[in-house]
Amino acid sequence: MLQDIDLSVKLGKQEYKQAMPELELKIGELQRQARLLKLPVIIVFEGWGASGKGTLINRLILPLDPRGFKVYPILRPNEEERLRPFLWRFWTKTPAKGRIAIFDRSWYRRVLVERIERSVSKEEWNKAYQEINSFERQLAEDGNVIIKFWLHISKKEQKKRFAKLEADDKSSWRVTAEDWEHHRQYRQYLLATEEMIERTNTHYAPWTVVEAKSVRFATVKVFETAIRALTNKIEAMEANRQDKPVAQNKSGKPSHQVKARQDKSITSLLGTVDLSKTISKKNYETKLAQYQKELRSLEYEIYLKRIPVIILCEGWDAAGKGGNIKRLTGNLDPRGYEVIPIGAPNDIEKAHHYLWRFWNHIPKAGHITIFDRTWYGRVLVERIEGFCSDQDWKKAYQEINEMEEDLTNFGTVLVKFWLHISKEEQTRRFEEREQTPHKKWKITEEDYRNREKWDAYKEAVDEMLLKTGTTYAPWTIVESESKYYARIKTLKTVIDAVSKRL
Amino acid sequence: MLQDIDLSVKLGKQEYKQAMPELELKIGELQRQARLLKLPVIIVFEGWGASGKGTLINRLILPLDPRGFKVYPILRPNEEERLRPFLWRFWTKTPAKGRIAIFDRSWYRRVLVERIERSVSKEEWNKAYQEINSFERQLAEDGNVIIKFWLHISKKEQKKRFAKLEADDKSSWRVTAEDWEHHRQYRQYLLATEEMIERTNTHYAPWTVVEAKSVRFATVKVFETAIRALTNKIEAMEANRQDKPVAQNKSGKPSHQVKARQDKSITSLLGTVDLSKTISKKNYETKLAQYQKELRSLEYEIYLKRIPVIILCEGWDAAGKGGNIKRLTGNLDPRGYEVIPIGAPNDIEKAHHYLWRFWNHIPKAGHITIFDRTWYGRVLVERIEGFCSDQDWKKAYQEINEMEEDLTNFGTVLVKFWLHISKEEQTRRFEEREQTPHKKWKITEEDYRNREKWDAYKEAVDEMLLKTGTTYAPWTIVESESKYYARIKTLKTVIDAVSKRL
Repeated sequence: MLQDIDLSVKLGKQEYKQAMPELELKIGELQRQARLLKLPVIIVFEGWGASGKGTLINRLILPLDPRGFKVYPILRPNEEERLRPFLWRFWTKTPAKGRIAIFDRSWYRRVLVERIERSVSKEEWNKAYQEINSFERQLAEDGNVIIKFWLHISKKEQKKRFAKLEADDKSSWRVTAEDWEHHRQYRQYLLATEEMIERTNTHYAPWTVVEAKSVRFATVKVFETAIRALTNKIEAMEANRQDKPVAQNKSGKPSHQVKARQDKSITSLLGTVDLSKTISKKNYETKLAQYQKELRSLEYEIYLKRIPVIILCEGWDAAGKGGNIKRLTGNLDPRGYEVIPIGAPNDIEKAHHYLWRFWNHIPKAGHITIFDRTWYGRVLVERIEGFCSDQDWKKAYQEINEMEEDLTNFGTVLVKFWLHISKEEQTRRFEEREQTPHKKWKITEEDYRNREKWDAYKEAVDEMLLKTGTTYAPWTIVESESKYYARIKTLKTVIDAVSKRL
Repeated sequence: MLQDIDLSVKLGKQEYKQAMPELELKIGELQRQARLLKLPVIIVFEGWGASGKGTLINRLILPLDPRGFKVYPILRPNEEERLRPFLWRFWTKTPAKGRIAIFDRSWYRRVLVERIERSVSKEEWNKAYQEINSFERQLAEDGNVIIKFWLHISKKEQKKRFAKLEADDKSSWRVTAEDWEHHRQYRQYLLATEEMIERTNTHYAPWTVVEAKSVRFATVKVFETAIRALTNKIEAMEANRQDKPVAQNKSGKPSHQVKARQDKSITSLLGTVDLSKTISKKNYETKLAQYQKELRSLEYEIYLKRIPVIILCEGWDAAGKGGNIKRLTGNLDPRGYEVIPIGAPNDIEKAHHYLWRFWNHIPKAGHITIFDRTWYGRVLVERIEGFCSDQDWKKAYQEINEMEEDLTNFGTVLVKFWLHISKEEQTRRFEEREQTPHKKWKITEEDYRNREKWDAYKEAVDEMLLKTGTTYAPWTIVESESKYYARIKTLKTVIDAVSKRL
């Protein structure tokens, strides 16, 4: 997931100067409210060497009342600390009610540096994950807001920054041999980080990946994320209170809204998709025939080796799910696969846990099941249409990850597609369908209604891709503006995933 | 913990006949309420071969409306089932809203039979624990009531039952070679069961151990446990509803109270303590000197080997905590240990998570910390006096277990004492203190107030012993009616625990 994030995002000086004053006022106000409400806050900064943790922490605390927070730089444990359980030094630093504790690096050291350096065994860092999740859960259940940042830069950018620091006599001491060693191990650290985010990205203590190449962009994102988290918590607390007088401003209304450019800082994987990808008809036909043949022989192989395969198709209306599935199955032995179209749940399905109906369709080992729409409906249509509560879809990311981990633990090959087209292309296809007699049935009022909610869906899709794009079940975004290109990419992705497993 | 349970408890025929009619009416009524409230219910029966699962399930379902439940006997997975993730066959059997699913054996097969038979790898059954906890948590969060029974009999009792079944031509087929094999592996299964209960005894899906030697006793306990769980859930649901008309009986008041002998079926570890244990003064003095000397040399050894030791002292007022601690430390090097007396939390402590103040006192590796009263205050005095909410102390068992697991993961030797005396002995000691000028300060109004709540405390202590007596941090109940005996047992227990670790 980390590798798919667009690290080139930046923010103009002008826009930055416009945004910051309001954000600074806001964070100060929220700090005062948090104190009145006795809300403890934990903010964790993790990230690559030279990714700007120090700078960002400095900017964040400037508008804060210094009596209300404390910054803890976390280094290698000292003698006192090594002689106690690794969480000891963090438990003792948890903030009192109404205070903010800011960690410059944190307990995650154990599953990053200490793991890679092998100063702890695999068993130890595996246990550390449990310990960390329990630690954060206990604090969250006790009322703490936990905000975790991963400052992300590329290996190239890191090298550039190290070199720049070294070139200057005044800062050259800051780059150590250890820093360069970590730089050489960028790939290893990347994988460890990916796993770290996956295993600790809970609804009670979620991670935010910050694109940190542009310091201005990163600053605004850190502020906006903290403001959002605090605002949500304070609003929830106020909704629970009988008497609401404390945390309000003079006008008598709570004022936690930051409207200005709020959503621009949300990481968008869709935003970076290159929709111009295409392929010639001739090339398409050759490859289609070739890949369909390959897939058919793989179908037999997985049957013999008893490997289960699940293919999930999600995507915009008219993005071509049906067409892609048709090409996937075009040359398959029908005894080996099944296509499950998912619509609104029926009464019996509604009377169960929302994942129940999908468990009913899990393929036997050796078989392929293709879902045309999936359990991701929970965090897409059910979220947007309000068919479930906010709490329901927010916790669904974890539930879905747990289910997919169960499946992959069993050895299932899981391939997840998001078919992506532009809003304009969707309009064009809707119109084409209207005008083509044999396609007209495909288009309904609902399609148009959904399109009006394009932006809300886009936000939901981006959050879904980030929170459920795991190492064991990654997403593949299929550029579907060209149907030919999309079909070939879909086939090829399935072939690669299955071959890798074999 | 399982080994400490008194399996000889039984119930007279007369008392059984008196209790059952009300329980049967009650469970039937609760089933109807559950249906109206669309409450899904899962009841799991696990236990030793021939422990009476079938009989108990039959008795439980007799008073139920057969249209509202289904019993699932879980055998070895068949071909269809083996070809899917192991939870598949259970997910698909989860009850619809308002229905009851009863499992005769369950998903726990994986961490019992399949683990011991080695048909799954250690990695697999370890993962299964995560999968099981996620599964149960997801269902509980979706509104399911989950009730889990472990039917417990001794190895001897099992042998007797197998032999009896075999002796009868009509039932001899029921005892298989596999049953006898499992019987021979009783000890291995016991340890696996202990771990299973420990790792899956969550507040959302708690285990109840049923002493199953007496079928009458077990029947009543199963009924009462199910009634309590359903009543609690239904009351919580009703408290959350604006409109409460549905689940009430004709008199207009909810009637879920089963008063009759309810608490007799709660497992009591205190109930079986032999308080007559004693030791002569001479013997005491010899051993005291010997053990104190041993402990002193162990103190140096743990210092050299950097092993941290934590000793927790809990017990009734006037049970002799102070005296025991004095003898523990009597001959120790004061640089190597510390005694932390725990009273009511101060303001700073109250402003943090309740475990924070204890984390502040965690010993360095190589040192001993003795807590005079401990974090167990959360589930004792805070529970009884209402200093925290029901939800708070109920989730504290898991929080405490997690903390103690963190400590033992680090290599800490953790020794936990409950000093036990009878209520009569306590009275005697209180009076003695009153009459001895230099001891009078020890006795306060509060002591008398606490004694009035003896029964409530006893229930809380028993629940604490059951839910936090883990393999990594077991409780030692010290029979303290004789102070000499208690002090020697305390010393000896610490010496054994430390020596074992060395």
